Amino acid sequence: MTYCVGLLLKAGIVLLSDTRTNAGIDNISIYRKMVLFEEPGERVIAILTAGSLSVTQTTIARLREAIEIGDEGRSIMHAHTMLQVAQIVGNTLAEVRGDIDDKLAVMKQGASASMIVAGQRRDGEMRLFLIYQEGNFIEATEDTPFLQIGEHKYGKPILDRVVRPDTSLADAQKAVLLSMDSTLRSNLSVGMPLDLCVIERDACRINLHRRIEAGDPAFRAMSDAWSNALRDAFQKIEI
Amino acid sequence: MTYCVGLLLKAGIVLLSDTRTNAGIDNISIYRKMVLFEEPGERVIAILTAGSLSVTQTTIARLREAIEIGDEGRSIMHAHTMLQVAQIVGNTLAEVRGDIDDKLAVMKQGASASMIVAGQRRDGEMRLFLIYQEGNFIEATEDTPFLQIGEHKYGKPILDRVVRPDTSLADAQKAVLLSMDSTLRSNLSVGMPLDLCVIERDACRINLHRRIEAGDPAFRAMSDAWSNALRDAFQKIEI
Repeated sequence: MTYCVGLLLKAGIVLLSDTRTNAGIDNISIYRKMVLFEEPGERVIAILTAGSLSVTQTTIARLREAIEIGDEGRSIMHAHTMLQVAQIVGNTLAEVRGDIDDKLAVMKQGASASMIVAGQRRDGEMRLFLIYQEGNFIEATEDTPFLQIGEHKYGKPILDRVVRPDTSLADAQKAVLLSMDSTLRSNLSVGMPLDLCVIERDACRINLHRRIEAGDPAFRAMSDAWSNALRDAFQKIEI
Repeated sequence: MTYCVGLLLKAGIVLLSDTRTNAGIDNISIYRKMVLFEEPGERVIAILTAGSLSVTQTTIARLREAIEIGDEGRSIMHAHTMLQVAQIVGNTLAEVRGDIDDKLAVMKQGASASMIVAGQRRDGEMRLFLIYQEGNFIEATEDTPFLQIGEHKYGKPILDRVVRPDTSLADAQKAVLLSMDSTLRSNLSVGMPLDLCVIERDACRINLHRRIEAGDPAFRAMSDAWSNALRDAFQKIEI
């Protein structure tokens, strides 16, 4: 399993992903699920992935290859708009999933994956998409300024309560980290380390990209403070 | 969908269920999902249900019929222990689900349901079980003093943080109500009114049974106070 979340705010984009990948509960590995593409000042694209690793790795590999060979119709670094980027990622994901599904059909199995695609091109809109396994997608709006993939339920209540379009980038980082903290506590298939990324509006570059390791003192302090604050708040509530 | 939760504490049992039942998003009804059986001072049994209404209603109807006709082998009010009660409920549920699955097979559909069974018989142990659709079951323990059925994920983080075997019955009611509140906010298929039940240890009777209607002022005040407390706590946390 996986948990990835993206916020589209007036101030910019905040993204967070875990790194746990498992093939059965007895085969757990660490894989980066956040891939960043950047031509600083010109364009910035972040892709977060959830689902079958064979699907997500192959999709990202094909996207990279299209950039390397300069295939203008399929290179996300040549796309004119973020909508085109989402379409390229969606089409590539659907194609790869179809290929792998065909291979797995002999075992009566299937594979799926979903992705969050976020970014901005100079003079273009900052956008945040969720790409489904079929290649279609939805987009974050003012009413729903965040999108999640993977194990999204445990971490949704805190986002519902505190994330608004005018949330600051500092508060947004806190919100995604607390959302992840609730998920980590409740689902073993989501695990540290974490990858955090912040893209300020109109910067068209990665403004912050940080890996948070297991045992990170600041993350642990925040997690403990949140637990204590919840318990205190719980004690004070009257029914 | 549904959300039901049961807590087994040193002080007793606390149970909470919602009442929303839907056949598609455009066909929503209210059905009680908490059924209580009581011979005060002698035995008390509570059953909470989640899943296909045709399965859960028929299962409860067969359990009632077995009590009415005094079928000693199948009447939960004649069972000598709570373990026997869980077995009777499990067997009845599996039988009904099998019957209905056979009917639905022609449409290539299936039906499932799960239940929480809790209670105590005089001079017996107070116990809390989760019955799976296949009829097998698990039991709450000191390490895991709560069980959930239905849409369990949104409401689990608060339970993980505050529920311990020595939690008081008052705090336990607060915990299940806040757990339900998080679920109601995030999943439209869980809805008011709610049914709350408290069974004190060794009382062998229902000590509290309350329906909480939509718009209940105390529930709304608690919900608002919790939202405010969460937002305050969020503001105070530093990263």
